[in-house]
Amino acid sequence: MIFKKVYILGGAQTDFAINWQRNGGEIADLLKAGFEKAATNCNIIPRDIQSAHIGNFVGELFCKQGHLGGIFASIHPDLEGIPTARHEAACASGSMAILAGMNQIQAGWCDLICVSGIEMMRNVSGMEASDHLGAAAWVGKEATEAKYPWVYLFSEIADYYQQRFGLQDEHLAEIAKINYANAKRNPNAQTRKWEQEERCFVTDEEYNPIIEGRLRKADCGRITDGCATVFLASEEYAKQHAYRSQIPLASIPYIKGWGHRTATMLLQNKLEKGKESAYPFPHLRGAIHDAFERAGLSNVRELDVIETHDCFTISEYVALEHFGLANPGEAWKMIEEDAISFNGKLPINPSGGLIGAGHPVGATGVRMMLDAYKQLTNQAGDYQVANTKNVGTLNIGGSFTTVASFVVGV
Amino acid sequence: MIFKKVYILGGAQTDFAINWQRNGGEIADLLKAGFEKAATNCNIIPRDIQSAHIGNFVGELFCKQGHLGGIFASIHPDLEGIPTARHEAACASGSMAILAGMNQIQAGWCDLICVSGIEMMRNVSGMEASDHLGAAAWVGKEATEAKYPWVYLFSEIADYYQQRFGLQDEHLAEIAKINYANAKRNPNAQTRKWEQEERCFVTDEEYNPIIEGRLRKADCGRITDGCATVFLASEEYAKQHAYRSQIPLASIPYIKGWGHRTATMLLQNKLEKGKESAYPFPHLRGAIHDAFERAGLSNVRELDVIETHDCFTISEYVALEHFGLANPGEAWKMIEEDAISFNGKLPINPSGGLIGAGHPVGATGVRMMLDAYKQLTNQAGDYQVANTKNVGTLNIGGSFTTVASFVVGV
Repeated sequence: MIFKKVYILGGAQTDFAINWQRNGGEIADLLKAGFEKAATNCNIIPRDIQSAHIGNFVGELFCKQGHLGGIFASIHPDLEGIPTARHEAACASGSMAILAGMNQIQAGWCDLICVSGIEMMRNVSGMEASDHLGAAAWVGKEATEAKYPWVYLFSEIADYYQQRFGLQDEHLAEIAKINYANAKRNPNAQTRKWEQEERCFVTDEEYNPIIEGRLRKADCGRITDGCATVFLASEEYAKQHAYRSQIPLASIPYIKGWGHRTATMLLQNKLEKGKESAYPFPHLRGAIHDAFERAGLSNVRELDVIETHDCFTISEYVALEHFGLANPGEAWKMIEEDAISFNGKLPINPSGGLIGAGHPVGATGVRMMLDAYKQLTNQAGDYQVANTKNVGTLNIGGSFTTVASFVVGV
Repeated sequence: MIFKKVYILGGAQTDFAINWQRNGGEIADLLKAGFEKAATNCNIIPRDIQSAHIGNFVGELFCKQGHLGGIFASIHPDLEGIPTARHEAACASGSMAILAGMNQIQAGWCDLICVSGIEMMRNVSGMEASDHLGAAAWVGKEATEAKYPWVYLFSEIADYYQQRFGLQDEHLAEIAKINYANAKRNPNAQTRKWEQEERCFVTDEEYNPIIEGRLRKADCGRITDGCATVFLASEEYAKQHAYRSQIPLASIPYIKGWGHRTATMLLQNKLEKGKESAYPFPHLRGAIHDAFERAGLSNVRELDVIETHDCFTISEYVALEHFGLANPGEAWKMIEEDAISFNGKLPINPSGGLIGAGHPVGATGVRMMLDAYKQLTNQAGDYQVANTKNVGTLNIGGSFTTVASFVVGV
């Protein structure tokens, strides 16, 4: 089966360091700011946009606001009347919006689509935010005793790794350090100005306390406000855009491959099932494999950059192995070889990832796609990885329940 | 542009009269019950399902549960691993799930898809439910003083009709009566066993009190629990299904046309803008026109049945005109001629619609598609309309903000 090509014409993200409520903004203002920055950034004609897809996890809980497609149609006069919808799969919501947009282009409905991922979360207390995010687990069936359900569940994953393969907390700490270091080069990263001493990454009950289970403060992504927007286009529209922008079509990145799978919801069921497999999360390996196969990649070494989910350090650890960068249980080798840092063989999260750049949950999948675009078009500024031809992404919803992976390239 | 055909292989709805919580069920149980009934009903092989799309408006608010795609992958062993996502546009969420599924088939990704619309709402008080449903309006910007935001906003629409065209409450009451009467023939309708005397439909402060503005109890749809599921298929898979089921391919309904548009969110802006047009909601007229055009219909009289949104009687009144059944402001003629009742020229909502059959909001668009399927395959039992070849649907999110219309036929 040959699918129609889907190009990425660019986009923008808001500054993830901004506390949107403290700046007097509501979720609609964030969506509008994100759209306007993106449209201006890449010279898009708003009246050419034929459809919009919004990625959002829990606007209803944080902002009491659903129906964000309606809000989107209200933020610019040229967007009034277009079809819009919101898509959700917990922290993978942004990728769901991309997939829905891709499908619409591949189906032949539309030539230019806007995909916007958004989450506003800093308007409530940390405890309340944690409670709201619990809606991504099977409510009432898991993590019921936990103070922070997601820290609890990912700590369970770390424990499982410890038991099955052995796991050293120092390797997780190294993942955090790399992401924070990378974020310092990213002018939109939430943590870019944070000053963190060595004791913020080691066993230090004051500077790096246990949050839940075995995971410490440095292992955890933070609550973030943000919006990320990309424009997807058919080949026909991409050609026009190239002509108008005086760039060759071949310089515009396109989605080469994608994978999307959903495992059973309960973490314990997944872990139990994973015991039968070489990989703890075979569906995750499968989704990445789907993306590679569609992109015609035979080996992960053909990727020049990976932007992966690191809601917790252990998420990235798991991802490294499932991408095929190390055998199961051996991600530590990549870390010890310094292969994944900004100057390593295969930089992981040059943006800073979720831990460094921030994790406005519904925006994250779109932010990854945007960062892929930036790397592929040499627009990543201080976090540019030279000679990038192929970027892999991995976006995760829940405890590796929904997984979505893309290969984007030129 | 020729689009790939998308067939409907059947499905099922749960009994909308059931209060799910009172029966000891959670939202996951409702999703599972809906899927199992549908799969059994139409002889679907679960392991053939390649993707699933869930329509749900506010599971987070009513049940604290998001990530319903993950739940879906957990309700049957053969569904584990498939891609899933949840789609939302307020009360039009079910249609958003259908559109996403359609796109995936048209794009060539999948041959068999499950679309499930779901909402569980009777587990909270009426006031709390009304408050949760407010998330479909622009929160903080409209209906801020209203006790019941949606009754308030649709009452505003009725007032606008009164001012622009004249509107008699008796005609709205007649719409309610027809929907309740139709529901008595539908074995899954929420209100099928309700006994309602004449005084429940007239100006009677005890039996039919004002709820908000000018809308009375009988004008309003009720809070409902329910799940509706349909299976969509490519032509290739529909052929196999026809062979296995020993029916001709030509007897399987397919989606002939569709329209989907999103207006600006605030009702007052829509009403203001509508003044410039012959139709109060030109985008609604446009979406229906899109569906007709794609289906190759030149006139609404080519439809044999319409299943339309009637969250309130005024919604159906507006819909009748925007379908082209009467000139703007003249829907009352259709009602006086008895054209829209079960034995009329063009039966509207033979199922009972939202008022009679029930309105579990995320399920409604899927329930409409399912009823279209039933009418087209002569499976509607006591509410079967003879010789149905084409069915139109209209699903609305918010104050006519998101509108989605389908033409389904054989």
